[in-house]
Amino acid sequence: VKPLEPNLRVPGPTPVPPQVLAAMARPMINHRGPQFRALLDEILAGLRPVFGVKEDVLIFPSSGTGGLEAAIVNTLSPGDRVLSVSIGYFGDRFARIASDFGADVMHLDFPWGQAAEPEMVAQRLRLDPSIRAVLITHNETSTGVANDLEAIARVVRDTPALLIVDAVSSLAALPLPADAWGVDVVVTASQKALMTPPGLALVSMNDRAWLAHQTSRMPRHYWDFAAAKKAQDKGQTPYTPALSLLYGLAESLSMIQAEGLPAVYARHHAVGEFTRRGVQRLGLSLLADPVHASDSVTAVRLPDGMDGKALLSLMADEHHVVLAGGQGSLDGKLFRIGHLGWVRLPDVESVLSGLRTVLPGLGYRLDG
Amino acid sequence: VKPLEPNLRVPGPTPVPPQVLAAMARPMINHRGPQFRALLDEILAGLRPVFGVKEDVLIFPSSGTGGLEAAIVNTLSPGDRVLSVSIGYFGDRFARIASDFGADVMHLDFPWGQAAEPEMVAQRLRLDPSIRAVLITHNETSTGVANDLEAIARVVRDTPALLIVDAVSSLAALPLPADAWGVDVVVTASQKALMTPPGLALVSMNDRAWLAHQTSRMPRHYWDFAAAKKAQDKGQTPYTPALSLLYGLAESLSMIQAEGLPAVYARHHAVGEFTRRGVQRLGLSLLADPVHASDSVTAVRLPDGMDGKALLSLMADEHHVVLAGGQGSLDGKLFRIGHLGWVRLPDVESVLSGLRTVLPGLGYRLDG
Repeated sequence: VKPLEPNLRVPGPTPVPPQVLAAMARPMINHRGPQFRALLDEILAGLRPVFGVKEDVLIFPSSGTGGLEAAIVNTLSPGDRVLSVSIGYFGDRFARIASDFGADVMHLDFPWGQAAEPEMVAQRLRLDPSIRAVLITHNETSTGVANDLEAIARVVRDTPALLIVDAVSSLAALPLPADAWGVDVVVTASQKALMTPPGLALVSMNDRAWLAHQTSRMPRHYWDFAAAKKAQDKGQTPYTPALSLLYGLAESLSMIQAEGLPAVYARHHAVGEFTRRGVQRLGLSLLADPVHASDSVTAVRLPDGMDGKALLSLMADEHHVVLAGGQGSLDGKLFRIGHLGWVRLPDVESVLSGLRTVLPGLGYRLDG
Repeated sequence: VKPLEPNLRVPGPTPVPPQVLAAMARPMINHRGPQFRALLDEILAGLRPVFGVKEDVLIFPSSGTGGLEAAIVNTLSPGDRVLSVSIGYFGDRFARIASDFGADVMHLDFPWGQAAEPEMVAQRLRLDPSIRAVLITHNETSTGVANDLEAIARVVRDTPALLIVDAVSSLAALPLPADAWGVDVVVTASQKALMTPPGLALVSMNDRAWLAHQTSRMPRHYWDFAAAKKAQDKGQTPYTPALSLLYGLAESLSMIQAEGLPAVYARHHAVGEFTRRGVQRLGLSLLADPVHASDSVTAVRLPDGMDGKALLSLMADEHHVVLAGGQGSLDGKLFRIGHLGWVRLPDVESVLSGLRTVLPGLGYRLDG
């Protein structure tokens, strides 16, 4: 008997629709031939509206972390001053990548659970005109907070600094029209709202970013955007592409296109609201500042003294619901519910009903 | 009607067995949970004999090129002198990666079609004891030549230089017992003899290589081997792994184990011999020095004046056989037949019979 497939509610990898899995079973092709060119063209056409860009998106066999590294080494030089605007674990990691490559990183950190304040970003840029780039996470997966990226882009784009955005857990879940907002570099990955298994990093670069690329001197080979663009313009990639994942991505992009981006965003918002209301009805509290709560992941504070590992185990063993714990300094202090990509209200309903059954056994008194 | 599946005979990506494609259709799992740990343990156990190593192999979401970059940035520092031993296009590229990261690259190039001479490698190392590493391609995909890696390892291991090997088109096709031969770093990728779609790079490091890692100062984050090893030792990866490809790799490794490594190597050797004999019976000549002809790919010289593109098109359109052209300076001068991974004699028989039919139409007189 095939075991019941668990309800995977970590904030990525997200469940992959059957038609995407089926597409991935297609046989290998010559990656220097006309079939590959057609596949790549279809994917690039599908990605442009999702990123909200006119330029082609660059695609790498890589996880999202590699895409972030690629964005940094293709736009900056050792010693360049950058402003890290961090609201959590992934913001901190983004800064670490930059410093690992010799950038001079200034930190503007906000308490975990809060969003970045655009006016404070503007202040820092006014005070220090030598800042070459601002690094920021659009949606912080560790805290369930979405930054007001439109407002932040507005203050950055009047300065010489590039805006480089980690959109790994936001793109295709939250609106991010990069060209319209003036976001210079956007990085995402396949395994979140793009509903494809992990293994692809995707990066958009606007004209300003390509200009920075010309003078960027951080060492690179695998990530070199000039080589990637040159190859992609010929319908190829600089080295063997991750064909199966590209087959899957083409399928998921056509699903997004069929649903329509506004409907995709509305669905994520509805599911996000439903999740937050449901969690609060159980008497639990959210980590995120309510104004900036993320529509792709919800971080829930563990009740005082509750063993988070026990909660996650019970949810998995008794309810086939797989949740995530806290990261970094939030380890043991919260659990997280992913609701991005291929998700509908019933997926979260079963999380909430599971919690309702499990929590009393862990000594938590339900109010309702 | 489903079109006939072409006989993909480029030297990678190679055809993927149906059971590997089927394994890849499994649903996503939490990459921080016990199921992933079991999957990773199974893969690492399966890889050890294929690499011939006692240490765990490190796995990255990446193409093979990324694996080569990873090997370099984890063992060397800017300014380090390295010896590039190149016999073709991929050897040259390996050297370029090293120089892109600031290594001081000395070149020992051999004519394309020839193998490297171990005694000349030994001479260079004697003349220049400051050489920190030797970069070499085990099997040069662009020329169809396999280096005598055992002999080269013998001359390198008596010196302080590390031996870093591009085994992308050799591992699991040609014997490469890394520990027994004293090969310090071995890099391969999923889409060749490992019979899995592209998107995974795999790297082995022995004790000497880990010692070099401790003082290596090339900048890195995504590729950092210390982080990868620390995570893998806990049954995880530093960031989201390419799950579907790992499902596939576990399956292909169990196929290799079932066939037995000696039988896998013998099959590649038999198919290689069969290919070379068949090509020569058509009156065509091989690029490779016959003593070092590769058992995973055969490079065939185009008859004088023949249009290689026309040959490849006719083979694809009329015989459903997909071959590769020449790379770099060999573009337009040869065609290549891949015969590694999931390959048997009939796969090459259909190539040869296709050539027999197509060549006369291109003005080539068959002798037989």
